[in-house]
Amino acid sequence: MANGHTESATGGAASEKITLGRYMWERIHQVGVDTIFGVPGDFNLQFLDSIYQTGRLKFITNQNELNAAYAADGYARVKGAPGCFVTTHGVGELSALNGVAGAMSEHVKLIHVVGQTTRTMQKNHMMIHHSIGRKPDHQTYNRCSEPVRYAAAELWDIETAPAEIDRVIRECFIKSGPVYIFLPLDLSAEEVEASLLDTPIDTSPHIDTEAQNAAVSAITNALSAAKHPSILIDALVQRFEAVPETQRLVDALGVPCFSANMGKGIIDETSPYYVGVWNGAVGTPGVREAAESADLMLTLGYLPADTNSGGFSRNIDEAKTIHINPHSVIVFGKEYPNTSIKPLLAALVDALPAEPQHSVPKAVLPPPRTPLDKDAKHITQSWLWPQIEKFLQPGDVIVGETGTSVFGLCDIAFPPDVQFIAQVYYGSIGYAMAATLGIEVARKELEGQPLRTGPDGGKRKKGRTVLITGDGSMALTIQEIGTMIKAGIAPIIFVINNEGYTVERLIWGAQQPYNDIVPHDYSHLLPLYHHPDPDTSFHRASTKVELELMLAQKCIKTPQSLQLIELVVPKMDTSWRLGAQLAWRGERDAERLTREGFVDTYGNWGLDGVERGSVRWS
Amino acid sequence: MANGHTESATGGAASEKITLGRYMWERIHQVGVDTIFGVPGDFNLQFLDSIYQTGRLKFITNQNELNAAYAADGYARVKGAPGCFVTTHGVGELSALNGVAGAMSEHVKLIHVVGQTTRTMQKNHMMIHHSIGRKPDHQTYNRCSEPVRYAAAELWDIETAPAEIDRVIRECFIKSGPVYIFLPLDLSAEEVEASLLDTPIDTSPHIDTEAQNAAVSAITNALSAAKHPSILIDALVQRFEAVPETQRLVDALGVPCFSANMGKGIIDETSPYYVGVWNGAVGTPGVREAAESADLMLTLGYLPADTNSGGFSRNIDEAKTIHINPHSVIVFGKEYPNTSIKPLLAALVDALPAEPQHSVPKAVLPPPRTPLDKDAKHITQSWLWPQIEKFLQPGDVIVGETGTSVFGLCDIAFPPDVQFIAQVYYGSIGYAMAATLGIEVARKELEGQPLRTGPDGGKRKKGRTVLITGDGSMALTIQEIGTMIKAGIAPIIFVINNEGYTVERLIWGAQQPYNDIVPHDYSHLLPLYHHPDPDTSFHRASTKVELELMLAQKCIKTPQSLQLIELVVPKMDTSWRLGAQLAWRGERDAERLTREGFVDTYGNWGLDGVERGSVRWS
Repeated sequence: MANGHTESATGGAASEKITLGRYMWERIHQVGVDTIFGVPGDFNLQFLDSIYQTGRLKFITNQNELNAAYAADGYARVKGAPGCFVTTHGVGELSALNGVAGAMSEHVKLIHVVGQTTRTMQKNHMMIHHSIGRKPDHQTYNRCSEPVRYAAAELWDIETAPAEIDRVIRECFIKSGPVYIFLPLDLSAEEVEASLLDTPIDTSPHIDTEAQNAAVSAITNALSAAKHPSILIDALVQRFEAVPETQRLVDALGVPCFSANMGKGIIDETSPYYVGVWNGAVGTPGVREAAESADLMLTLGYLPADTNSGGFSRNIDEAKTIHINPHSVIVFGKEYPNTSIKPLLAALVDALPAEPQHSVPKAVLPPPRTPLDKDAKHITQSWLWPQIEKFLQPGDVIVGETGTSVFGLCDIAFPPDVQFIAQVYYGSIGYAMAATLGIEVARKELEGQPLRTGPDGGKRKKGRTVLITGDGSMALTIQEIGTMIKAGIAPIIFVINNEGYTVERLIWGAQQPYNDIVPHDYSHLLPLYHHPDPDTSFHRASTKVELELMLAQKCIKTPQSLQLIELVVPKMDTSWRLGAQLAWRGERDAERLTREGFVDTYGNWGLDGVERGSVRWS
Repeated sequence: MANGHTESATGGAASEKITLGRYMWERIHQVGVDTIFGVPGDFNLQFLDSIYQTGRLKFITNQNELNAAYAADGYARVKGAPGCFVTTHGVGELSALNGVAGAMSEHVKLIHVVGQTTRTMQKNHMMIHHSIGRKPDHQTYNRCSEPVRYAAAELWDIETAPAEIDRVIRECFIKSGPVYIFLPLDLSAEEVEASLLDTPIDTSPHIDTEAQNAAVSAITNALSAAKHPSILIDALVQRFEAVPETQRLVDALGVPCFSANMGKGIIDETSPYYVGVWNGAVGTPGVREAAESADLMLTLGYLPADTNSGGFSRNIDEAKTIHINPHSVIVFGKEYPNTSIKPLLAALVDALPAEPQHSVPKAVLPPPRTPLDKDAKHITQSWLWPQIEKFLQPGDVIVGETGTSVFGLCDIAFPPDVQFIAQVYYGSIGYAMAATLGIEVARKELEGQPLRTGPDGGKRKKGRTVLITGDGSMALTIQEIGTMIKAGIAPIIFVINNEGYTVERLIWGAQQPYNDIVPHDYSHLLPLYHHPDPDTSFHRASTKVELELMLAQKCIKTPQSLQLIELVVPKMDTSWRLGAQLAWRGERDAERLTREGFVDTYGNWGLDGVERGSVRWS
C-alpha cells in the first residue's frame, strides 16, 4: 500500500547517514502515513524532532494517549495506510493500550511507537521516573501489550534496527492490526545509511498461486451450480483493502447483496443488487427472508460477533455457504488455506464469465412500519435516524459511537460513496469522538487524490465527516474536540443527550444511579477550546421542528468549522434494533424492557413473527 | 487495617446466603472502603447492584476508567484503606491500566474489580463484543495486567471464590499495591454462606519476632555508637501505614530530620527537629550540608528514584546509613530480612531509652536567596510558591501534579497536619486532577474520625484539598472536574496556564510545536459541568496583586463548592528546582536552558558551589 513515496529521502548519496529516528519516520511515511499522532514525553522528545526533519510528515499533539490511539485508528480506516502514534515509556504507552486492543479486535492497521529510556538506564536498572520498584525492569510495560499486538520491534542494536522496523511495518499490513516499535531514546540518535530507504518495504501479501487457484475453482464451481446465490459483505473486506475487488465482484455476479452492520457502506447501497443489512432475527422486515432464500451465500470478510449478527441470530447454513476470509476460503465447510482476500477476489472476478450467470429477481421488501410514537413533537429515535439519512450526502464519512447510535445507523440507507466507521465488535465507548479527529485529518490529506473505492478516474471529494455520539460516550474523550478545533477541521458532531448510558439502562439497571452521568451544558464546550465561532457553531434541538430547521442551515450542511449539535432525546428512548436485540433473548428480557418503561417503537419490540433466541447472557 | 466493620453483614443466621457479588463488596467494605469508583459496563452492571445492597457502600460513576483508577489511588492515599474501582471486561479494564501501574510504582493499595463475560461465553470462545478474533480467549486482557499487579483472583468456582477474594485483599495490604478481582458476570449471582463474613480478613503483616529483634538490636547499637545521627523520611512510611510510628521515633530520637520530596508532609514540618527537603545537590542551600554532616543516617521507607533524589544527586554513604525498608533493614550494608516496617518501628521506639541519647544542635540554614525576578508585576514561579505556602492551613491536603508543580511545592514549608500527595516516581500527568476526586471523597468520610497521624484523641478536621496542576497535565483528565461538581465536593484547584508542557520544554524542544497544547478558556469549564455557582467560583490571575487579593477571598479560603483558579504564568518560567536538576546534569544542559531563554531564578541555575553530575540522559 505504498503511496508512491519511494524516492530517497535525502537525495541518495551512498554514504549519507540519517538518524534511526528519522529512518523510522521516513519508512512510516513511505507506506502512506502523512500525520503522526501522540503525546510528547521525556523519552520521545528528541526523536519527535525527526518528524519535522523529514519535511513531509506532520505531528498532532493529542490531549491524551488513549485519544491518540483512537485518532490513529480513525486515520487508518480512511487513509488505507496505518495510523501511527507515539507515546512515552510506561505512562503514555499503557494509557493507550485500550486503543491498541481495539485495533487488534477490529483489524485496523496501527503503529505504536514507544519512546523508551536509554539503554544505559535499562542495563543499570535505574530508578528513572515512570518505572516500578527498586531495581526496575524497564521492559515491564512492553510485556503488557504482548497479548494485543501482532508484532513488536524491540530495538536495541543499530545494526539490526532498520530491518526490524521494516519487518513490523510489513506485519502491520499483512495481519492488518497493531504493531509496536520500542525505541530507546539514545538509540534514536544513532545513525544508519540513508540509502536503506531506497528499497521500498514490501507490504503486499504473499500469494500462494496454487492455493488461490484451488479456492477460486471451488468457488466458481459452486456458483455455477447455484440458482440463487447471494453475497454478504462484511468489515474485513475493508480492513484488508479489498473494497475495489468486492465492488467488481458484486457487479460481475449481479446477485442480491447484503451487508452485516460492520460491512455497511462498503458497497454502494443505491446499487440495484443491494437489499439491506442482514442482521439475523433483528432487522428490517423482509431482509432476513430475502437472505435466507439464497441457495448459496458468499460471505466476504465476515466477522460474526454478537453485535454484528443480531446477537448471534443470523443463521448461516454452512452447507450452502462460502466464506472468503482474509487468509482462507471455506467452501461448504471445506477449508482452502493460505489465500489472501484481495488478490483472491481479483482472481475470482477474472475467472467469472463476462456476463452474469444468474438472474435473481430483486427482493421486494414490505413497506416500512409506522412507529407508534410517530406523532410526538419531541425528537424520538424512530424519527431521528431517517433525518440523518436525509442529511447524508455522497462523499460523507459517517462515524457511529457504540450505544444507541450504531444501532440507529444500521437502519438508514447511505447515498453512494459513504464510508461508515464504528467499533462494532470492540465497542469501546469514547472511541468515536477521538477517532473523528483522525478521520478528518486523513480525509483532508486524501482530498483531490484518485478515488480508491469509486469508479476509475474519479477524484476524492472534500465530503463531510458526520459523527453521531451520545452524552455518556462523549464524556470519556471529550477533550479531543479541543484538538479538532485547534487543527481547524470541520466535522459535524451530533451528540444525543439522553441523560446517561441509555444502552446500559436497556441491558440492566434502568433507573440505577450508576447509569447516570455528569450532566453537561454543551453550549460551553466550543468556547472552552477557543472555537473561532462558538455561538453560531453550537446548536441544540429538542423538538422535531427545531432539528429540521437546523439541518437546513448552510453552516451545518456545508460546515467551515466544527459544528456541535445537541439532540435532546428522552432517556428511555432507543433505536428499535437495540431493544429488539435484547428482547430477542427471551420473554424475560422483553418483559423487563416493558416494565422499565422503554419506548417500544413498533410494539412487541419489533419482533412480530420472529422466533426468540436461547443464548443465556447472565 | 480493618476499620471495625466486622459484624455480620446480614444479621448472621448460619444458613443465610448472599451472592458472591455482595460478598465481595462486604469484604471490601470490611477493610475500610466506603466508596467504590468505576464505570458501568455490560459485564458488571448486575453486581453493581450489590454495592447498594450492602447498605453501606457508595458508588461514584467516573467519566472514564483511567480517571476511576486515579480517583481510587487518591482515595487510598488518604483513607488508609485500599482504593477500589470497577470496570468492564477489556475496554474498561485496559483503559485503567496506566492508573494501576502507577499504584504499583508508588505502592498504593488498589483493588481493581473487572466484570468479565459469563463462564459459558468464555468456555465457548464466543465472539462477544470487546473480544479479539474468531475464537476469542476472554482472558487475553487479564494477561495484560500481570506485570503491574501483585495478585489476582481469577474467579471461576463458587467454592473457592470467597477465599480467593480474601487472599488478594490481604495481599493488597501486605504488598501495598494493586490487586485484581476478575469476576465472571454469572458467577457474581451465585451464592455463598453469609457467615463467611464473620471471620475478618487478616490484613496485618506476619511478624518474624526473631528477625525483628535482631534488626532492632543492630539499629539501637548503631544509634548508641553515633554522635550525630539524622533521619531521612520517605514515602514508603506512609504507604505501609507507619506514619504514627515514624512520628514517635522522631520524637524519641530528637535528632535532625529530613524528608525526601516524596516523604514531604509525613512528619510535622514545624517540629524542632525538622530541617528540610534533602534532595541531594538540588536543594535549599544548607540542607545538603546539614544532612551530610550526620555520622549516621537512618532512612525510613526510602524510595531513591531520580525524581525523588535530585536526579540521583543525593549521596548516601552506605557505611554510615541504616535503611528501614518495608520488608527489610539494612545496617551499614548488612541486610536483616523478613521484617515489616510498621511493627519494626514500634519495637524500635519501645527499645529506645526514655530520654533522647543525642543532643545534635539544630542546623542553621543561610537566609533565603533573593530571586532575580522579584520585582516582576506578573506572577512568577519564584513568587508563586511562597504564596501557596502562606495559603496552606493545618489539616489541608495538598496535591501536586507532575511537572513544575511538584518541583515548586518541594520548596514550601507545610503547617502541621498537612498531607502531600503526588506521583513523584511514576509521574503520569493527569493523575492529580482525577486523584483529587478520590482524595476529597475520602476526606469527607474521615471527617470527625479519630486522627490516625496526629496526637491521640484528636479528631479529623474538615480541612481543604488544594490541587496545583498545569494546563498541559489537566487536559488529559479534565472531565473529572465534572464528577467532582456532581459529587458536590469542594477542592480548590489551581491551574498554571503557561501555554503547554513547560516541563517538557525544559527537557527538550523549548519552542517545538509538539510542546504546545490546545489553548483553554477556563471560564467555560465550570458551567460546562453545571457548577452551581460558576461565575463566582472561577478566578483568573495574571499579576501578583490580582492573586493576593484573590487568595484573601472567603470563597477561596473556605470553599463551599469547587473553586477553579487560573494562574497565568510565562511559558518559559519554571520552579528553580526543575531548572537546577536539569542544569546539574552538565554544562551542555545548563547552556541549552540559558540559550532557550528559560527563567534562571537565582543565576547559574541555582547551582553556585555545587559539583555537576555525570549521568548521561540521552
